[in-house]
Amino acid sequence: MNEFDPDIFILDVDGWANSEPVDLAELRGQVVMVEVFQMLCPGCVSRGIPQAQRVQRAFNTDLVKVIGLHSVFEHHEAMTPVALNAFLHEYGITFPVAIDRQRDGQRIPATMARYEFQGTPTTLLIGKDGRIKHRFFGGIEDLQLGAILGQMVAREAPAN
Amino acid sequence: MNEFDPDIFILDVDGWANSEPVDLAELRGQVVMVEVFQMLCPGCVSRGIPQAQRVQRAFNTDLVKVIGLHSVFEHHEAMTPVALNAFLHEYGITFPVAIDRQRDGQRIPATMARYEFQGTPTTLLIGKDGRIKHRFFGGIEDLQLGAILGQMVAREAPAN
Amino acid sequence: MNEFDPDIFILDVDGWANSEPVDLAELRGQVVMVEVFQMLCPGCVSRGIPQAQRVQRAFNTDLVKVIGLHSVFEHHEAMTPVALNAFLHEYGITFPVAIDRQRDGQRIPATMARYEFQGTPTTLLIGKDGRIKHRFFGGIEDLQLGAILGQMVAREAPAN
Amino acid sequence: MNEFDPDIFILDVDGWANSEPVDLAELRGQVVMVEVFQMLCPGCVSRGIPQAQRVQRAFNTDLVKVIGLHSVFEHHEAMTPVALNAFLHEYGITFPVAIDRQRDGQRIPATMARYEFQGTPTTLLIGKDGRIKHRFFGGIEDLQLGAILGQMVAREAPAN
Repeated sequence: MNEFDPDIFILDVDGWANSEPVDLAELRGQVVMVEVFQMLCPGCVSRGIPQAQRVQRAFNTDLVKVIGLHSVFEHHEAMTPVALNAFLHEYGITFPVAIDRQRDGQRIPATMARYEFQGTPTTLLIGKDGRIKHRFFGGIEDLQLGAILGQMVAREAPAN
Repeated sequence: MNEFDPDIFILDVDGWANSEPVDLAELRGQVVMVEVFQMLCPGCVSRGIPQAQRVQRAFNTDLVKVIGLHSVFEHHEAMTPVALNAFLHEYGITFPVAIDRQRDGQRIPATMARYEFQGTPTTLLIGKDGRIKHRFFGGIEDLQLGAILGQMVAREAPAN
Repeated sequence: MNEFDPDIFILDVDGWANSEPVDLAELRGQVVMVEVFQMLCPGCVSRGIPQAQRVQRAFNTDLVKVIGLHSVFEHHEAMTPVALNAFLHEYGITFPVAIDRQRDGQRIPATMARYEFQGTPTTLLIGKDGRIKHRFFGGIEDLQLGAILGQMVAREAPAN
Repeated sequence: MNEFDPDIFILDVDGWANSEPVDLAELRGQVVMVEVFQMLCPGCVSRGIPQAQRVQRAFNTDLVKVIGLHSVFEHHEAMTPVALNAFLHEYGITFPVAIDRQRDGQRIPATMARYEFQGTPTTLLIGKDGRIKHRFFGGIEDLQLGAILGQMVAREAPAN
């Protein structure tokens, strides 16, 4: 496997909350769900994050690994790392959260810009081979998400 | 394949609503979800049946086939075939519904008795080989149901 | 008070479930909420009836009296008195239910026809003087219903 | 009326969001609902604030005036005025919000301490005479809240 493969999903971050840095390359062979959110985005708080928490409960972590990605592209002064930590604590969010890298003079952070996310919430499903297989902007029904994840877990060839 | 295999799921019915009789033997190779309900069971109306309708929408019918089973074990005089047809019409239920066979002088109908369902709603997931793989009494979360169905669709060997 | 007053709300019924016949004339001085429903109407089952049950719990019965009115105008053969009784039992409905009078050769029952209800669910709010003050077809938010009932309880002159 | 009356509800604040300062003394004759919240309190975000917004829609503002009170007693460093403004914008909150006064070296802000609120969300209902008539910690059903407000609007003597 070649990590310079342009199709491999890469996080470009300023840091992590809830966890030591997670190395996605070490997660080959697992399905990874990345929940892209902003702590002050109503649709993320009411739907996206609770759904990610349900996925975390429904699947064993060695089958589906849930990771948050805090991609702040508005109200930067309000959604600071210290505010994010308070938010994660209050909402009982325990999965690792990557903090998308802010770039000088740019509103859109690095990972969001690279993959051209349309906004938040966005849900990415990363295959066992490290590539993005599905992305959903604005939400997807639980039943459909479960069906896709179940098929990815069962069907996909393990890495290499 | 031997239809006298005791593990093969068999419906024992008085008739069908919404459909010509469905021959389960012809569904080998497909996953089948059987939603066991009573039209006057509140948990069936508020949760079980809407979930079956969501499964019907989420999966192509050649992957997961949804069938209802009306297993009346109380208020028999109220839940007649004519009442069932009115119910199906009002609730927009379009999947085939088997009417569990009433037995003289017995409260519990035939299929329910044979498989010892605990009550309604009960959800049965039948594998591609025609055998019951999972059963849930009282409900299961959408995400978990989707995950199980997704894995059954992807993983299970086709029949014979 | 003159019971032949054409503005006084009158029930024209075949009978009652859950209760001896209720004489509306004896309820002057109380606010009465009449929930018009059909047992196989999805909007009644999911919204109208649960709301009537919440009103029953929220207000002392000598302030707001809740009454159901089963106005069957379709699927008459399915929504019989015996079926209604099974329905009331299964859904834990304890308020008195009037059975709107069926008329020979007519689809629409008597009370529904007299007051030209548009369909079910319909909610009628009857003042302390026995007259219809408000009617809602298809539902009203809890907060608004509570506000109107609260004002009716507080504001209206008692019957004299 | 004597503003030094110890029963008159008084806000002790650092400032206001969404509005010029509101003088409660000028609201005599109106019912006032004060929604006490913290922007990172899950129960406030999912239940308390949406309910306050429904009250704002259900009642004419000259009958029931809705005011928020941001009483920060934890994560002070995250719930700053700039963060509050971003939150109000994202959640479409348009009613005036008082910012409870932080006191040097104290965790609990001034108004919260004075009236011994148990936590957030807390809902206060202030009568036309300026006194607290009801307080609810943790939530109240819409129907019951509507009923109480309806009675307060109708029953209470106007201020003199």
